[in-house]
Amino acid sequence: MNKALASLLLLSLSTPALAEPTSYSNNAIDAIWLITAGALVFLMQAGFALLESGMSRAKNAVNVTMKNYSDVCFGSVAFCLVGFGIMFGSNHNGLFGSDHFLMSNFNEYDYSLLFFQTMFAATAATIVSGAMAERTQFFPYLLGSILIMGLIYPVYGSWSWGSLYEGNGWLKELGFIDFAGSTVVHSIGAWCALAGIIVVGPRLGRFDRYGKVREIPGHNITLVALGGFILWFGWFGFNAGSSLGADVNLGKIALNTQLAAACGVMGAIAALRFSHKPILTHNIVNGSLGGLVAITAGCATMDPRFAMLTGLTAGIIVVATSRLLEHMQIDDVVSAVPVHGFCGVWGTLAAGLFYEGNLFDPHIFVVQFVGAAAAFLWAFPTAYLAFRLLKSITGLRSPTLHEQRGLDFSEHDEVGYPEFQKQALHQRIGGNKDA
Amino acid sequence: MNKALASLLLLSLSTPALAEPTSYSNNAIDAIWLITAGALVFLMQAGFALLESGMSRAKNAVNVTMKNYSDVCFGSVAFCLVGFGIMFGSNHNGLFGSDHFLMSNFNEYDYSLLFFQTMFAATAATIVSGAMAERTQFFPYLLGSILIMGLIYPVYGSWSWGSLYEGNGWLKELGFIDFAGSTVVHSIGAWCALAGIIVVGPRLGRFDRYGKVREIPGHNITLVALGGFILWFGWFGFNAGSSLGADVNLGKIALNTQLAAACGVMGAIAALRFSHKPILTHNIVNGSLGGLVAITAGCATMDPRFAMLTGLTAGIIVVATSRLLEHMQIDDVVSAVPVHGFCGVWGTLAAGLFYEGNLFDPHIFVVQFVGAAAAFLWAFPTAYLAFRLLKSITGLRSPTLHEQRGLDFSEHDEVGYPEFQKQALHQRIGGNKDA
Amino acid sequence: MNKALASLLLLSLSTPALAEPTSYSNNAIDAIWLITAGALVFLMQAGFALLESGMSRAKNAVNVTMKNYSDVCFGSVAFCLVGFGIMFGSNHNGLFGSDHFLMSNFNEYDYSLLFFQTMFAATAATIVSGAMAERTQFFPYLLGSILIMGLIYPVYGSWSWGSLYEGNGWLKELGFIDFAGSTVVHSIGAWCALAGIIVVGPRLGRFDRYGKVREIPGHNITLVALGGFILWFGWFGFNAGSSLGADVNLGKIALNTQLAAACGVMGAIAALRFSHKPILTHNIVNGSLGGLVAITAGCATMDPRFAMLTGLTAGIIVVATSRLLEHMQIDDVVSAVPVHGFCGVWGTLAAGLFYEGNLFDPHIFVVQFVGAAAAFLWAFPTAYLAFRLLKSITGLRSPTLHEQRGLDFSEHDEVGYPEFQKQALHQRIGGNKDA
Repeated sequence: MNKALASLLLLSLSTPALAEPTSYSNNAIDAIWLITAGALVFLMQAGFALLESGMSRAKNAVNVTMKNYSDVCFGSVAFCLVGFGIMFGSNHNGLFGSDHFLMSNFNEYDYSLLFFQTMFAATAATIVSGAMAERTQFFPYLLGSILIMGLIYPVYGSWSWGSLYEGNGWLKELGFIDFAGSTVVHSIGAWCALAGIIVVGPRLGRFDRYGKVREIPGHNITLVALGGFILWFGWFGFNAGSSLGADVNLGKIALNTQLAAACGVMGAIAALRFSHKPILTHNIVNGSLGGLVAITAGCATMDPRFAMLTGLTAGIIVVATSRLLEHMQIDDVVSAVPVHGFCGVWGTLAAGLFYEGNLFDPHIFVVQFVGAAAAFLWAFPTAYLAFRLLKSITGLRSPTLHEQRGLDFSEHDEVGYPEFQKQALHQRIGGNKDA
Repeated sequence: MNKALASLLLLSLSTPALAEPTSYSNNAIDAIWLITAGALVFLMQAGFALLESGMSRAKNAVNVTMKNYSDVCFGSVAFCLVGFGIMFGSNHNGLFGSDHFLMSNFNEYDYSLLFFQTMFAATAATIVSGAMAERTQFFPYLLGSILIMGLIYPVYGSWSWGSLYEGNGWLKELGFIDFAGSTVVHSIGAWCALAGIIVVGPRLGRFDRYGKVREIPGHNITLVALGGFILWFGWFGFNAGSSLGADVNLGKIALNTQLAAACGVMGAIAALRFSHKPILTHNIVNGSLGGLVAITAGCATMDPRFAMLTGLTAGIIVVATSRLLEHMQIDDVVSAVPVHGFCGVWGTLAAGLFYEGNLFDPHIFVVQFVGAAAAFLWAFPTAYLAFRLLKSITGLRSPTLHEQRGLDFSEHDEVGYPEFQKQALHQRIGGNKDA
Repeated sequence: MNKALASLLLLSLSTPALAEPTSYSNNAIDAIWLITAGALVFLMQAGFALLESGMSRAKNAVNVTMKNYSDVCFGSVAFCLVGFGIMFGSNHNGLFGSDHFLMSNFNEYDYSLLFFQTMFAATAATIVSGAMAERTQFFPYLLGSILIMGLIYPVYGSWSWGSLYEGNGWLKELGFIDFAGSTVVHSIGAWCALAGIIVVGPRLGRFDRYGKVREIPGHNITLVALGGFILWFGWFGFNAGSSLGADVNLGKIALNTQLAAACGVMGAIAALRFSHKPILTHNIVNGSLGGLVAITAGCATMDPRFAMLTGLTAGIIVVATSRLLEHMQIDDVVSAVPVHGFCGVWGTLAAGLFYEGNLFDPHIFVVQFVGAAAAFLWAFPTAYLAFRLLKSITGLRSPTLHEQRGLDFSEHDEVGYPEFQKQALHQRIGGNKDA
């Protein structure tokens, strides 16, 4: 009787515990977050397109947006079929993944992850387009971006973030900290861009015969600011999404992202004021982007007060290294290399310097340095070789006449603003209409 | 004593099971997702506005954006008060819902659902505005969009997706597959658009006296690309939100969406290259949109490799059917009918063809065909009749002089870019300033 | 033996209750929602920038976007370091918070909250920029926005929403209803803007010598509409995010937001038709924004049918009070005071009038009135004093020659559209190029 009563009690009381759980699985909630964050990262493509188009001349507006629209297409397919396997597939040698190609053996969570990671790969690839704007042929550029998303980016990614299945990349084994990809995404993209702009050379008239810099103002500064806002917006998905699921730590990640961007602007303003230079819109926008790139590595492990310092320093670095590139006669239309390259390195080091508020730990710092250096040593020569090969085989630089008339008219058979650029439609032979 | 001990044990152990659950209800989590996804779908209105405005001439830029801004307002109210009840209310006859009008008897989840579905209805309605741009009067157009959101769209919707309460629509009973609305939203919108552009006729000068096509380039190609990016971004909410709650399958849906869009661009590029035509920005953008429309029906039930094939084919269809409409002397400013109509049909068939990787099942295919055909047979004649009636009663087409001067100046008392279109402000009588 | 059996049963049955929970903590899910919603609110900065830039002349396009881009940076830092503590810190006197400065003593949820609230503060600050556009110096403006985000906004916020820790603000104690900030955010911003435009005075030529109004059309109406769409989009994060976590009530909040915006447009159209005025794009956009501001206070506690009424009335108020300001010779470039100020007051009263469908309750109404009045009595004189001080110390208004040439050329050393505004680049001395 006691037993019977106990059993009865047990049954009645344990019903809630035995019932089917009515709450969602973590995977379902993670899917919400990965899709939301991935969509925000996708929109960064629009931000890049606007920023790059706005900073180019009107005669190349179509070319720039076409490149951005196309590279995400070709690159997404390349990454889904090949890149993901290289980056996240089982990594037995520490150097590259070797399975999960062609979206085979995927479970439901893998699809969410591939969606999110495809947007990351697209970000790395599209960094190149801005730097090389206004003088690069369309189809060779596309081949380059397929190579970046299908090979250069995922190989380095496998070192730092691989594998999801078996084995670890060699940098991951060392404890390399790059939460959302200051190095993995941004520096890799920037070093490819640097290789591209060295191979393709500066735009006509960017440097005069004495090597003096000539400013070439962009045609739509409002779009530059809009592009900056959209990139900043998307970055919340970029950084907070890199938790790859719901997490109480998302708040700190997002706050760090906001503060680093804000302080990046302050750093850029301070640096320009200090050097008695005008504060132009693209300086402010690039200051915020520099701050965003820099916080990307350490956003999950840094105190927000250090995030402010990281962003402030990044804003100064953008101004200083943009000047450096100009002195080296390297023509980077949107300052992609200073923003994504040099600030990526700084952010990677900062993630070690300010790791969870600890004081300087030489071991962590060395690993961070090794990771940043490895990115340059892998991406720059590989991309340089690739662009040199493209130059030899298909050609890379647009013909001078095309560049003078604008790539839109010459290579795309349309112009961006036909009612406001009538000459471009009617002229068949002519020189630089901006002259 | 045994009993007492057992009870004590029971009480102590069962406390967690008896305690108030600390985790959110599924409805609360679904609400997060439906609001997020619904907001993304709302932003598609901005994408449509930019795409349509950019592909129109500057003299009609205000008109196009005013239509987009207004139709979502009038249509949202019509859908909330009337359309939702028709579409999702208890459906005893299989043909239309008959309760839940005027937002009565709503529970909390219903509000989330209505919010999300209102954005869908707005999408269907706004497809029309682009096709009919540059020559349609403002207020008759608004009446048309109220009719679409309040009647044409919800009736068909009730067949496929109704009811949420009692009874099923006849297509739903047959097992019609249209997860997020290739047919329900996009084809319905496109067939209404087709009726509209046939009734209103082509723009002045679109076809010459011998029936030859004359290109009328849009005034801002950068905005066309931005509109495409924003639509693509919003589509992740459109497709993945159609799960109507958290779901582990969201990842596959989003990935299919991305790959179909990317392959749509490739298909369009391939088709244009093959036919030796220039690849213009709107071709690329429409290629991606065609891929997005096509994957909308089957995104939840298709293997990503088939999603690529679906998108690729859609890109080819957009190019081919755009040419077809031109040959038929039908003037669709933004190719809304090829993108949303023909690719909607293709996507609906593809959802059957590639259903969960199965081989061809004639039964599924026939149902898909019936659903696609029913959409045309319902929406096209109804909309045609409505636009004919509007034409008789209020007038539909703008007067020739208004069309020549631009609808902005003639019907809206302002111009889009007053500092860059000075003649439009100062002229009082004149011809086509674009001539 | 009974006991042993009972224990065995207990152990086996109670395992699910004793096991580690596999589902996410509410805080992790709240973090997803707060970051998503906060990111949407951030994007409202882009919406404001486009709206304000589009409604200004091309010669001030850079100035407007620079102000928007910079105030969010300086203001975010001011709010994180100082404002948050004043607003949400322990509030022992009912008048302001006194701890949680400098992001100290933060737990993980606090970071999410601070992120979200920073975006709110930025919204309040940026309202000012549009009203004061085209004639205000850059750096004094920035000082003003730091003051708003660091002091004026958080002090009032502490009355209504403080504290998160200990003690309540005096308005919160009274039961003041302002769910997402019709008064806290929008009216406070608008009264600061009103003070600013009174101190800085109207633009040159806005009123002729007889006090008659001269329209100064904005330079890019497409951007005005895009800005409106983006603001509307962001508002779903603004209102639904104010639940500060997952909630089944989000659906009603979002639906109310949508319907109030839609009916705001209808109200504006009706008011303009009734007064035989043309319906311009900015009227429609401001109608929607007025509806959005008005529903912000009561969106969580109002029946959607009353939300429609609230929005409709707001649309009428925008039109009427815009006219009122013009009659008072007050020059508000974007109608920020009518939209955010007067509609904010109306929305605050409406939240009381239509509280959960109850009939008129005089007590609630009086509290709502007191809250709205307190906002004016605090923000307007404080901001007025601050702008007067800025005017005396640093100067506030741009010199006449700068205003004539445009602030872009005079104060920012660049122009927004250099290829389409050539005179601006080449002229060194000159008058109003718009004349």
